[in-house]
Amino acid sequence: MNDLEPWMRHALTLAARGRGLVEPNPMVGAVVLDASGQMVGEGWHQKFGGPHAEVFALAAAGDRARGGTLVVTLEPCCHHGKTPPCTDAVLKAGVACVVVAMADPFPKVAGGGLSILRNSGKEVRVGLLESDALALNAPYLKLIRTGRPWVHAKWAMTLDGKIATRTGDSKWISGEESRRRVHELRGRLDAIIVGRGTVVADDPLLTVRPAGPRTPTRVVLSASGELPERCQLRSTAREVPVIAYTTSANARKLDGWAADGAEVVAFCEETVTLDAVLADLGRRRFTNVLIEGGAGILGSAFDGRVVDEFHVFIAPKVIGGTEAAPPLGGTGVAKMAEALTLQGVTFAQSGADVYVHGFARGV
Amino acid sequence: MNDLEPWMRHALTLAARGRGLVEPNPMVGAVVLDASGQMVGEGWHQKFGGPHAEVFALAAAGDRARGGTLVVTLEPCCHHGKTPPCTDAVLKAGVACVVVAMADPFPKVAGGGLSILRNSGKEVRVGLLESDALALNAPYLKLIRTGRPWVHAKWAMTLDGKIATRTGDSKWISGEESRRRVHELRGRLDAIIVGRGTVVADDPLLTVRPAGPRTPTRVVLSASGELPERCQLRSTAREVPVIAYTTSANARKLDGWAADGAEVVAFCEETVTLDAVLADLGRRRFTNVLIEGGAGILGSAFDGRVVDEFHVFIAPKVIGGTEAAPPLGGTGVAKMAEALTLQGVTFAQSGADVYVHGFARGV
Repeated sequence: MNDLEPWMRHALTLAARGRGLVEPNPMVGAVVLDASGQMVGEGWHQKFGGPHAEVFALAAAGDRARGGTLVVTLEPCCHHGKTPPCTDAVLKAGVACVVVAMADPFPKVAGGGLSILRNSGKEVRVGLLESDALALNAPYLKLIRTGRPWVHAKWAMTLDGKIATRTGDSKWISGEESRRRVHELRGRLDAIIVGRGTVVADDPLLTVRPAGPRTPTRVVLSASGELPERCQLRSTAREVPVIAYTTSANARKLDGWAADGAEVVAFCEETVTLDAVLADLGRRRFTNVLIEGGAGILGSAFDGRVVDEFHVFIAPKVIGGTEAAPPLGGTGVAKMAEALTLQGVTFAQSGADVYVHGFARGV
Repeated sequence: MNDLEPWMRHALTLAARGRGLVEPNPMVGAVVLDASGQMVGEGWHQKFGGPHAEVFALAAAGDRARGGTLVVTLEPCCHHGKTPPCTDAVLKAGVACVVVAMADPFPKVAGGGLSILRNSGKEVRVGLLESDALALNAPYLKLIRTGRPWVHAKWAMTLDGKIATRTGDSKWISGEESRRRVHELRGRLDAIIVGRGTVVADDPLLTVRPAGPRTPTRVVLSASGELPERCQLRSTAREVPVIAYTTSANARKLDGWAADGAEVVAFCEETVTLDAVLADLGRRRFTNVLIEGGAGILGSAFDGRVVDEFHVFIAPKVIGGTEAAPPLGGTGVAKMAEALTLQGVTFAQSGADVYVHGFARGV
């Protein structure tokens, strides 16, 4: 099976082309080899609702697939969803062997696809580059497993760890290239989440410029319901979706927001917890969401250990000030031994800034 | 003159070998070319009190220097200091041409060396790679110009911009490789400066492990004179020098420190300003000093714009907490437009951390 590793790696690369386009489906890539081991077809799941990777790859291969091998990053589906079962296509193509990186935990598949193929006499192997496949689709897997979306956190800070000066000025901490990267990130996400304080202080638009593969819903949390009467989020709520989460007791304060096109979601609890918000976003099958700030909501997110992936931009600027805001508020840990040490960390120069990227947990 | 640029670059590289060994002298490197342009000698100022770069290079060249060219990073000296004037050695060697990166502003030289050489009929050129030479000896030049040492600031912080948890725990923020680099830095400096709070909170030793080319004096600022009766600084004050700066009114509180071998310096003013401390360290001809923290003294240093060079280690750890200390306290700037944007910034991986290095001003 090891000689197929380069093909699985290629299939994973193909799969990643669907990022931002296929969610809440998983990203999937596939390669078809003929009986002699030559590649005769490739494909990837290109967009939600469209054909699956195997279908593209097998169609490209045609008769040359017969007696060959299908290399695919995820177990083929065996149910009628938006498209017919991929297992049908695989059987019809007549490949002798199917090599899969990982089984699909999606309840309507969950090993069923592999069983059908095995029971039809195919040689089926599972687990080639499995950890890479798990990492690629970590957001998809989390949503299935927990009902919550994958949570990205992003902040831009100075070299002395501030996100604004003592007077609250934050334009701009990071440079153009870093802001471009943030828009690129936003453009593949389902939602951007901010706290009430950020809306009041910065009046952000939270759109994607230029537009990316998807348009994230803009989400604001305000237990008090005290959001500005005039702000960019509210005035553009008909063009780009806005959800305001609040409490039942205060929901009436947001009637104006609702009238202007925002969706107001009120919880019966006395406050708005991030967990309740994430559960609601998960019910909407949001796969990736981004918490952009400010310090209050990012601190709560860290304290609640809900962040999965970190994006931090550090500008080579110093502003000083005991009262200048740090990126994370909240309670924090007591001892360094309890610090969250990021996994899979990469550093990259981003214009004059450095971009640090990492994960809360290893895969 | 441009064809000599690679030789001047080589001479600058040689000069840098003296870093940490020659201060408060400048670092100097020299190359001797014979009449046909072949390198026949090289040298650098190796340690304070020892022979100058030109002397080594000319000695290596011997008779082959005659009619040749001396390429040297700094104007040759013309005064009897710890060694005889280099201009004598240059004239005696019989070189036809002397190429110098920069004149030496040291009061006893200050163009005098160049005049002697010109008046003796040598062809003298000044200014080749001058900005590199100015950068190399920026600390030496600052000390001559202002009477103050070059001030390095160093901090190690988490990815969320904290230097300790909310309970004050800071062991360890950065990893082994970063701590090794900090010791390497310390080992070429004249002093390490900390505030009273750091001594109380961390009881640091502030020595260099393993030992470097020089042993920095450990400096603590305490206007109140309220330093611990028992701490590592005090108990090792006979082995590695300690200076405690305080006010006349509170100096008696440090009698015990003085009895244990620390030098207690009392200012008549009501407080201990960094500027007064730096002026005193400059009088001692300290060339490079390092402010290691904590937030109070680093904040004052930033507010007073006394920092010349920044060394920041950022660990991929998150600790959170509104009350966790930031690297810089003090007042800070009001607007992002007033932020200090570092010059000549470099990023380097340092174990699991990133090391950001830059300067307050361009050269």
